[in-house]
Amino acid sequence: MSNPLLTAPHRRLNPLLNEHVLVSPHRASRPWTGQVEPTQIATQPPFDPACYLCPGNTRSGGKVNEKYEGTWVFENDFASVMPLDGEGVEGDGTYIGGDGLFQAERTTGRCDVVCFHPRHDLTIAQMESKDIRGIVDEWARIYLARGAERGVEYVQIFENKGTMMGCSNPHPHGQVWSLSAVPTLPASELRNMHIWADRRRSQSQSVTSEHPGHKADCLLCNYAAQELRAHASAVERGAEHNESRIVVENEHFVALVPWWATWPFEAMVLPHKKHHHSLLSLSSEERDALADVLNRLTKRYDNLFKCSFAYSMGLHQRPTPTAAELGITTSESEVEVDADYAHLHLHFAPPLLRSATVKKFLVGFELMAEAQRDLTPEQAAARLRACSEVHYLKDEG
Amino acid sequence: MSNPLLTAPHRRLNPLLNEHVLVSPHRASRPWTGQVEPTQIATQPPFDPACYLCPGNTRSGGKVNEKYEGTWVFENDFASVMPLDGEGVEGDGTYIGGDGLFQAERTTGRCDVVCFHPRHDLTIAQMESKDIRGIVDEWARIYLARGAERGVEYVQIFENKGTMMGCSNPHPHGQVWSLSAVPTLPASELRNMHIWADRRRSQSQSVTSEHPGHKADCLLCNYAAQELRAHASAVERGAEHNESRIVVENEHFVALVPWWATWPFEAMVLPHKKHHHSLLSLSSEERDALADVLNRLTKRYDNLFKCSFAYSMGLHQRPTPTAAELGITTSESEVEVDADYAHLHLHFAPPLLRSATVKKFLVGFELMAEAQRDLTPEQAAARLRACSEVHYLKDEG
Ligand SMILES: O=P(O)(O)O[C@H]1O[C@H](CO)[C@@H](O)[C@H](O)[C@H]1O
Ligand SMILES: O=P(O)(O)O[C@H]1O[C@H](CO)[C@@H](O)[C@H](O)[C@H]1O
Repeated sequence: MSNPLLTAPHRRLNPLLNEHVLVSPHRASRPWTGQVEPTQIATQPPFDPACYLCPGNTRSGGKVNEKYEGTWVFENDFASVMPLDGEGVEGDGTYIGGDGLFQAERTTGRCDVVCFHPRHDLTIAQMESKDIRGIVDEWARIYLARGAERGVEYVQIFENKGTMMGCSNPHPHGQVWSLSAVPTLPASELRNMHIWADRRRSQSQSVTSEHPGHKADCLLCNYAAQELRAHASAVERGAEHNESRIVVENEHFVALVPWWATWPFEAMVLPHKKHHHSLLSLSSEERDALADVLNRLTKRYDNLFKCSFAYSMGLHQRPTPTAAELGITTSESEVEVDADYAHLHLHFAPPLLRSATVKKFLVGFELMAEAQRDLTPEQAAARLRACSEVHYLKDEG
Repeated sequence: MSNPLLTAPHRRLNPLLNEHVLVSPHRASRPWTGQVEPTQIATQPPFDPACYLCPGNTRSGGKVNEKYEGTWVFENDFASVMPLDGEGVEGDGTYIGGDGLFQAERTTGRCDVVCFHPRHDLTIAQMESKDIRGIVDEWARIYLARGAERGVEYVQIFENKGTMMGCSNPHPHGQVWSLSAVPTLPASELRNMHIWADRRRSQSQSVTSEHPGHKADCLLCNYAAQELRAHASAVERGAEHNESRIVVENEHFVALVPWWATWPFEAMVLPHKKHHHSLLSLSSEERDALADVLNRLTKRYDNLFKCSFAYSMGLHQRPTPTAAELGITTSESEVEVDADYAHLHLHFAPPLLRSATVKKFLVGFELMAEAQRDLTPEQAAARLRACSEVHYLKDEG
């Protein structure tokens, strides 16, 4: 990078969380003698009779899976939250003890499992865009359905992929936890996006945007525009390798390594042409574009270290659909004000750092003080840009 | 627990970070078919000629270790931050681009390694209190020495223990990163302790405390008192098993599983009789008491699953010593105001959940939304209270 400040140790600001990350660019070269992860078993049978997610199989509770052919959703047999059953209800659901230092609130909701595909041996990285489009449609459906339920204030769609991310089943699937409260991280993002918008409006009397589809006071609309501008300027000066954070881009969506990335190859996927509060405001063409970017990003991920690349992925959007989307006139939500600042985006948090078996440990200093990374986001983006979009298993086969 | 709210899923507030943790008490019973960790090798030789931390050995950079007999400190050969060398200095050390969305600041400082003991085969859990007292003294020394250096605004003392926490060498050691900025988490704690103190003072005209040594507006002085009161009341009612979070206690220090614990067997160690801004305000007797609690807590940790219990541990205290402690009349620190709210405490973040090889994965929902735990802090504290304080290897031997 041309700026010497950014080649020496520095901290970057994450404006979504108002937190910093310590970047130590020179540190990637230290020798590694620590724990190596077991290699992910790359090939699975298309159908596994012992898998509790394969079509037609029986789950541990005795329930039998549908013989599904596309995506399929069922309620998690070991849900972390449940709807209120009449019996347990006592008081207003809050607890305050210890002179205010012991505070708790009842949390209700539902946990769903989303099977992405009937085939046991596929991952998103190995699917076609049309399969991924099916997953996007399923996410939109479940966001609308769970968001419409009484008492649900937030719908979190996520995927854990790979044993090193605590995923116990290779069958392609994700989860949806719908809760009676907006969780800590999305609440913090929405609060900071709200503060940013207020500041933005106070800075200029008429906030306008170059892109007609952008919301001029939306942090992420502006961020996407700034990243694409920085990329274009870097390309023009032949400095792409050192300065760009863009990984893949199409007509409507972009995948990039954020300025403030914590995980070595962290990525964010977001719409860059138009403001979108959630999956529900996407057109069919835009849903295809999202599927295309997910397809291309995950193939590059697998190709980076020639392995099934582990990650946690999560969608952040409006906590629940708008009143209009739900077909009601007024919404009961108490989080309306911040909710209006949401902009659809997906976070990918992959742990691998050096190879298919050596990950970055976010421990010690990171758990006690601050996130820390060993290569710059620009270096990570350049490595991902250099990867092919043909999956390595297809390539060899 | 007697309160039905706390046996069903609920969220608890962490007042130090102003964040929530989702508690799903029923979830510990789900079957586990995911990744198991390699068993930690419990026995090591007392001296390992290949260890870069053993006395007299040569490190990868060619430097030779002292033949130390107690604790020993040296600068990390792969430091994540370094002092400014004249050359790299350009501008004021800040970078602002992308219309304010790309922000960075130069970060300088030093990274030290603290060897806890010459013997390769010991861990804190296997040491005597007098050895641990030596470590406490070493921490106090380095906190004072690094905190006195120009440009150092924060000294973070921590330990990564165990390969599953990214620790690449079993030789007992910790690290100290001294930085030109107060990192995200301690900065957040100090900010919230400051806000809490302001609120406390505005609530009552004269804030007084039952304990003469307490600072009446200190969040953690009050928290320790509330936890000990809750414990005493639970014991009186025979409800200790369901309600207490205390693990071990002596005259000056207590180890407890905090109300808001994230990790299954997370613990916090803090002085409960007297307000202490850092290690430097402890008397010799109090340092012994800290060593005693660390000794007893870590032995219980090892005994819980009969293994060398992995964890990340960190000390939070005043960012740097006071001007008086540094022997100067005015301090240059820019963080004075929040710093005055610090109260010495140690966090232990251990990942194991079910056994010596099955850990809790903080992934998916946790990375994208909110910390989540599967057993209550009270259940965790009861399990640790039930453990012996005689180390299982000694017991067998
Ligand atoms: O410095 P070490 O022990 O080699 O490295 C370990 O601790 C560091 C500080 O917590 C982390 O950044 C590394 O990811 C971890 O592997
Ligand atoms: O629900 P699963 O896939 O069994 O469990 C996994 O994801 C959950 C949600 O992120 C985590 O709480 C668990 O620690 C993890 O093992």
